[in-house]
Amino acid sequence: MWGGRFAAQPSDIMQSINASIDVDRRMVLQDIAGSRAHADMLAETGIIAEEDNVAIQDGLDQILEEVRAGTFPYRVELEDIHMNIEARLKELIGEPAGRLHTARSRNDQVVTGFRLWTRGAIGEAVRALSALQRILLARAAEHADTIMPGFTHLQTAQPVTLGHHLLAYVEMIERDKSRLLGAASRANESPLGAAALAGTGFPIDRDVTAEALGFDRPMANSLDAVSARDFALEALAALSIASTHLSRLAEEIVLWTSAQFGFARLSDEWSTGSSIMPQKRNPDAAELIRAKAALIAGQFASLQGAVKALPLAYAKDLQDDKRLTFEAFDTFDLCARAMAGMIDTITFDKANMRAAAAKGYSTATDLADWLVRELKLPFRDAHHVTGRIVAMAEADGIGLEALSLNSMQEVEPRLTDAVFSVLSVEASAASRESYGGTAPVRVKEQIELWNKRLGLEATS
Amino acid sequence: MWGGRFAAQPSDIMQSINASIDVDRRMVLQDIAGSRAHADMLAETGIIAEEDNVAIQDGLDQILEEVRAGTFPYRVELEDIHMNIEARLKELIGEPAGRLHTARSRNDQVVTGFRLWTRGAIGEAVRALSALQRILLARAAEHADTIMPGFTHLQTAQPVTLGHHLLAYVEMIERDKSRLLGAASRANESPLGAAALAGTGFPIDRDVTAEALGFDRPMANSLDAVSARDFALEALAALSIASTHLSRLAEEIVLWTSAQFGFARLSDEWSTGSSIMPQKRNPDAAELIRAKAALIAGQFASLQGAVKALPLAYAKDLQDDKRLTFEAFDTFDLCARAMAGMIDTITFDKANMRAAAAKGYSTATDLADWLVRELKLPFRDAHHVTGRIVAMAEADGIGLEALSLNSMQEVEPRLTDAVFSVLSVEASAASRESYGGTAPVRVKEQIELWNKRLGLEATS
Amino acid sequence: MWGGRFAAQPSDIMQSINASIDVDRRMVLQDIAGSRAHADMLAETGIIAEEDNVAIQDGLDQILEEVRAGTFPYRVELEDIHMNIEARLKELIGEPAGRLHTARSRNDQVVTGFRLWTRGAIGEAVRALSALQRILLARAAEHADTIMPGFTHLQTAQPVTLGHHLLAYVEMIERDKSRLLGAASRANESPLGAAALAGTGFPIDRDVTAEALGFDRPMANSLDAVSARDFALEALAALSIASTHLSRLAEEIVLWTSAQFGFARLSDEWSTGSSIMPQKRNPDAAELIRAKAALIAGQFASLQGAVKALPLAYAKDLQDDKRLTFEAFDTFDLCARAMAGMIDTITFDKANMRAAAAKGYSTATDLADWLVRELKLPFRDAHHVTGRIVAMAEADGIGLEALSLNSMQEVEPRLTDAVFSVLSVEASAASRESYGGTAPVRVKEQIELWNKRLGLEATS
Amino acid sequence: MWGGRFAAQPSDIMQSINASIDVDRRMVLQDIAGSRAHADMLAETGIIAEEDNVAIQDGLDQILEEVRAGTFPYRVELEDIHMNIEARLKELIGEPAGRLHTARSRNDQVVTGFRLWTRGAIGEAVRALSALQRILLARAAEHADTIMPGFTHLQTAQPVTLGHHLLAYVEMIERDKSRLLGAASRANESPLGAAALAGTGFPIDRDVTAEALGFDRPMANSLDAVSARDFALEALAALSIASTHLSRLAEEIVLWTSAQFGFARLSDEWSTGSSIMPQKRNPDAAELIRAKAALIAGQFASLQGAVKALPLAYAKDLQDDKRLTFEAFDTFDLCARAMAGMIDTITFDKANMRAAAAKGYSTATDLADWLVRELKLPFRDAHHVTGRIVAMAEADGIGLEALSLNSMQEVEPRLTDAVFSVLSVEASAASRESYGGTAPVRVKEQIELWNKRLGLEATS
Repeated sequence: MWGGRFAAQPSDIMQSINASIDVDRRMVLQDIAGSRAHADMLAETGIIAEEDNVAIQDGLDQILEEVRAGTFPYRVELEDIHMNIEARLKELIGEPAGRLHTARSRNDQVVTGFRLWTRGAIGEAVRALSALQRILLARAAEHADTIMPGFTHLQTAQPVTLGHHLLAYVEMIERDKSRLLGAASRANESPLGAAALAGTGFPIDRDVTAEALGFDRPMANSLDAVSARDFALEALAALSIASTHLSRLAEEIVLWTSAQFGFARLSDEWSTGSSIMPQKRNPDAAELIRAKAALIAGQFASLQGAVKALPLAYAKDLQDDKRLTFEAFDTFDLCARAMAGMIDTITFDKANMRAAAAKGYSTATDLADWLVRELKLPFRDAHHVTGRIVAMAEADGIGLEALSLNSMQEVEPRLTDAVFSVLSVEASAASRESYGGTAPVRVKEQIELWNKRLGLEATS
Repeated sequence: MWGGRFAAQPSDIMQSINASIDVDRRMVLQDIAGSRAHADMLAETGIIAEEDNVAIQDGLDQILEEVRAGTFPYRVELEDIHMNIEARLKELIGEPAGRLHTARSRNDQVVTGFRLWTRGAIGEAVRALSALQRILLARAAEHADTIMPGFTHLQTAQPVTLGHHLLAYVEMIERDKSRLLGAASRANESPLGAAALAGTGFPIDRDVTAEALGFDRPMANSLDAVSARDFALEALAALSIASTHLSRLAEEIVLWTSAQFGFARLSDEWSTGSSIMPQKRNPDAAELIRAKAALIAGQFASLQGAVKALPLAYAKDLQDDKRLTFEAFDTFDLCARAMAGMIDTITFDKANMRAAAAKGYSTATDLADWLVRELKLPFRDAHHVTGRIVAMAEADGIGLEALSLNSMQEVEPRLTDAVFSVLSVEASAASRESYGGTAPVRVKEQIELWNKRLGLEATS
Repeated sequence: MWGGRFAAQPSDIMQSINASIDVDRRMVLQDIAGSRAHADMLAETGIIAEEDNVAIQDGLDQILEEVRAGTFPYRVELEDIHMNIEARLKELIGEPAGRLHTARSRNDQVVTGFRLWTRGAIGEAVRALSALQRILLARAAEHADTIMPGFTHLQTAQPVTLGHHLLAYVEMIERDKSRLLGAASRANESPLGAAALAGTGFPIDRDVTAEALGFDRPMANSLDAVSARDFALEALAALSIASTHLSRLAEEIVLWTSAQFGFARLSDEWSTGSSIMPQKRNPDAAELIRAKAALIAGQFASLQGAVKALPLAYAKDLQDDKRLTFEAFDTFDLCARAMAGMIDTITFDKANMRAAAAKGYSTATDLADWLVRELKLPFRDAHHVTGRIVAMAEADGIGLEALSLNSMQEVEPRLTDAVFSVLSVEASAASRESYGGTAPVRVKEQIELWNKRLGLEATS
Repeated sequence: MWGGRFAAQPSDIMQSINASIDVDRRMVLQDIAGSRAHADMLAETGIIAEEDNVAIQDGLDQILEEVRAGTFPYRVELEDIHMNIEARLKELIGEPAGRLHTARSRNDQVVTGFRLWTRGAIGEAVRALSALQRILLARAAEHADTIMPGFTHLQTAQPVTLGHHLLAYVEMIERDKSRLLGAASRANESPLGAAALAGTGFPIDRDVTAEALGFDRPMANSLDAVSARDFALEALAALSIASTHLSRLAEEIVLWTSAQFGFARLSDEWSTGSSIMPQKRNPDAAELIRAKAALIAGQFASLQGAVKALPLAYAKDLQDDKRLTFEAFDTFDLCARAMAGMIDTITFDKANMRAAAAKGYSTATDLADWLVRELKLPFRDAHHVTGRIVAMAEADGIGLEALSLNSMQEVEPRLTDAVFSVLSVEASAASRESYGGTAPVRVKEQIELWNKRLGLEATS
């Protein structure tokens, strides 16, 4: 394989640690596409004869069929997908196969396939996220008025609407998509033609192969082309960040479906039972999504650690770039789809949510705001007054709305009956009409906007 | 501080673990800017009286002066910069200070300051990277024709030019800048007015504060606004990726300045000596840059781990977001500037580089390509023939160009004298004229392009 | 500083990136101890004169006093603590100071101090963990009979006792201590005398310095001595693992103190309020402990990334070893002490816990086990029967114990009245008497054992 | 599978994300061993009938045969290895199979198998490391006198012997083994009998199963038993640290085999070539080992992130513990064996190493030490004098030993001819006779010691 200069075969362990065919066979279609484009260009520029190109294209056709039929003979001793295809092409068409590698090296060939794969995988991930957004949006529309407790520090803070809560994830996911598309755009340059590391003396036309493969342009520096892996790092970082959002929602599903919260119930399709406790309904998929966010972060860390201090140009340390990236995208795709399935079929318990929202003095801020608005107290003073009233209610073990006006007036004599109108959870939520606020009227506006935006996306 | 409801003071350890003033005092200017914009808007919308706003703005002016004069009394018992400023404002202007926190919470206040800080820090980082690019470009221009060995696997591969090598980093850094600017753009939305988590019932105008603070728009969901930290994660990821490029160049400096490579010598200003070995010239700064890439990656990992499974909305786990982000930007800035200093003053040893390029059969590919071009051998066969010729030269302990034509013809009889013209390192480099290739003519084109691009950037 | 060979001063940025005095001044006592031991040995072996040693020891005494009095003049231009002390010694005692560095290099000097520091810090961490264990044990003793729901997947699984739950952490922490002590033991070898990297020709006695500094033995290979940082990595790994246990307990505190769980209430000293919501009681310290587990893991990752591919021997990449390690121990210490404070003063709500344990069909396993024991059903069949009975109760919205015998007999006719005796949460918990089980009798045995073990430790 | 309470089947995606059979089938032998021990104990304590136990043991025998023959029907719809075996047992022996799960849950069953697996894998890793030590030792013995340059900061520091250098790795690896064995010892406790989380009411004997499975003791707290994963984290941390040592040596192989260093040449079995550059000999395995250190660190980070904030007891987040641990051990084993193969067959170029050692003023410290010893200069002054002499030699482009005495005396008039005796690299290395130093006499002592130690280990 290495030409005529090696006397001994690689040791078995060397072969085991070195072979990547079990991983990079995943790029079989990308490798074939790259070879097709390269051979066409070689013929177009007169570097190889047209009949050689015809033979190569026919051979690659045949290989494609074998791949699709599952009959392609992958061989571990040929190390990787690129050598496997070239060797098979030789078997199928003979000498012209040897001309395909003109003005090309595995260094630019591998990373061309890998960039194509990554571009495609980002597209898939974005589609999966859009699908999840649509489901979140549909459930938000159902629950634009549904009251639930908003938490900070997992302590009841203020009443919010479930629709508002679900829309928060639609926002996060939109940024995740934007981040992934940014990564795809920076990845979408063609390294093909950089050859081993220095370019080539053959009169190739890199614009032609770049265009044939849908790249925005050829990369402008051949050393950079074969050694850069920032596109993979950026893709993993974007996935890792997106996975934190899925993980946060997963954490909420675990909480919401606990007996203590009782806010929601997963469908049977998304629950598991126990081998010993017959009563269990476990949110396994949500827990797994939570764990996968740690997995993908570890994959980013691994690749960063591998790349970090490599001199130019290519080094074999980069080999795991593909394993890590493939696994991360597979994992993420499964997580996005599992989350979509769970959210689509989860049942919310509106009564429990409303009851929870009404506990924990969640409208205390509304009382403080009333004091500011009606009695012109500075907010800090209003905050202090409210704190004392809450302490009083807490001592009696009752809610704010159950306190008598008299009791409240002991703290602030100017309080009037009118204050009770702001102490209900519905009034509280409805009052938060500032842009981005939780008031149903605002939530419905946002839903309409998102429907348009995602609808347009779907039809584009 | 928490209103009237707590009987006991926090324990000392609680105060130690909870206080963040030593970290977030760094955002003092951003917090003041946020408060100014908020107060102006409160007055404009009639939520507070104009005279209160005047008092607040005057008080903030005074605080700004104290900060600049170094006389501002930071107090750890006030926990963070926000409480410190509010408390000081109260001391300075009395009651109106209590009105500033109307329709605002620390939750939106903190993250407003943090987004402003991050946006500014990204700007600094991009400027530092542009400065480094300019220095790389200047050195590349000096060395557009300087021959050095190109490596893959740290084995001599093909001759390249030093200018080409340095330009590879200009390319990487350009992507790093683009990635940072993408992060800044996604970060540049205003959370101010989200209040605690649900928005507010006061008739605030979030567009006004967003515009006053230079944000592109107010964030559309209040829960998202106070709990999202993907902007910080993205900034850390972008820094972490950029730091791998600095680390790769740092690794090369360590190699190049070793006695074994002898390619370059750091200036005295960028070398250190030894406490025991008087002859040492150590590339400490390059080594530190290499280490810092691991440091920043760890900071990304830490924040990702902290955020990953938090339910909405704000949780105190997020407190270290600032410490991690501040440290990462400080570290990165130092690295970018240290790298600029090293590259600016490093001396390259052209003779050593050229000599190294000529060893290791670096023009073997040129021989193979000649066989393809002149004798129409398929590349694979040419590769094999060349491998045998290299083995022959290696056995004799001589370079390819020193082999006799006769010897070569034993392997391939059709070889002619003409082959020697491709075996010099200069001819090899000059021949790689494909776009992005290492030929001086291509390198000079790229330098011209970059001069224009970075020149335009500098004047814009 | 580097002897007579450098013409130019380091650039300012070089000094900034290189200086470590703000970090390593922390090792001032360790550095002095190391110098004392080294000088004593140099005199003992006749390498320096006894009067020089006397002068050195006196000078170090003076420096120690200055350090304690806070008057020691730390100077950033002297780069690190070691150079600072040596320079000060020169000022104080003149020429003999120059003899202290005989047969020593900063390479072995730094890592000697760092190993001493780490050994001490591990001791502190272990003591903090023992203190936490004692508090957990005291609370477990109070609650050996307190029933609470045991969870898997955060779904109610089986009733357990709170004492049992708290003892689980005592077990984890014991392993954490053992792991830290293992790290201390492997760290406790003396690198002093390895000099720069190769040992020295002076007739030093490394056993003498090792013993004087409390090391188990001198390290047997000088290259290893100056370049190994696995002791720091192991300490960080052990802290990182221990921090996951604190983080798990912290997560439980966050859950338990939520309104939804209502299992516990933090004391005022360990709660914080809100700047806008007067009713809040936030478990900030618990949240911070959760975040710090991510912080420390990132610090391990950073150091591993910095060390991973360094050729022997010392490289400057290692400089951040101390910053990372110091921060990790400081952070961990604060977390352990904060956790102790929270657990010590937290109030458990036994009624809420018991009520929660009784919900969610937590005794379904007891019913299944009864079917196995009394009716000789295979467990799998019993599990199936129980599942059907749970479904029936769930459909009626009642607990298992509220089902009529008749209803149950529809599923399994051989069921008798006797079954009701196993369906109470107290009976369920009490029945789990297997070793390690949650039955109060077992829990009390364990508490007694731990009291002895930790009591012995305290008096040893 | 979950008893009679679920109406719908899990969705396909749920099954995909949830199934672990492709990973945990790796524990098939451990699961069978656990079931055998459990059934024996159930019979011994009278919980099941002896004839049921006989049937179960026979069934498990049959399954074992099927596994070994490769005919065992793994089914993904049965989710994991445990359910697969139980279901197959049911097919084979009918009703008694249903009795095996008495007093057991998947929670304790899974982690019992996983602890057994980890214990075994640690044993393998330790053996692989011992084998590597023996090879390092053999090569060190060959090269106890071979001079090479010792580096700090990759700058020539002082001459060392190659034997000494290789022994440094023997030391590191010994600590790695100790660390792994510490992890194994803490892992070697039996969780079996903890059942779901709370123990069981059946009169099981956990000492019996613990002993049968070779555990040191049963775990003392059932909640801890099913939820703790610190044993896996510790194993991954130990592997991660050990992998840094392999990575450091790998880095050195990459450097040493470069044309610039020319210190060593990998055998053909451990070299790879290039698809384009026929002259290449690439150290792929060394580069991969370097990358794998980053991979394993990422795996530790992933598991830490997954575990960090989980409430007790078991949660599905833990599922990837096995995938990560299995992969890390597989990777590490390959790395240790590849390193052994490379070191075993690498050829060192003694002439090149010696020549390199003689360059770079590597004996400057020897000159300084001579000034201290012979002229009684304080070391600091000697260091300064030497620095000036080095600068003089450097200016002339010659080595120290080539300077004339006259020239040296310009700097320090008291220098005599005797100084030249310490300026040869052989004299320098031989002089460093301090314990742990590089002098051949010390190196040979260490080799003898290690031969005994590893020999004893091998025969034990």
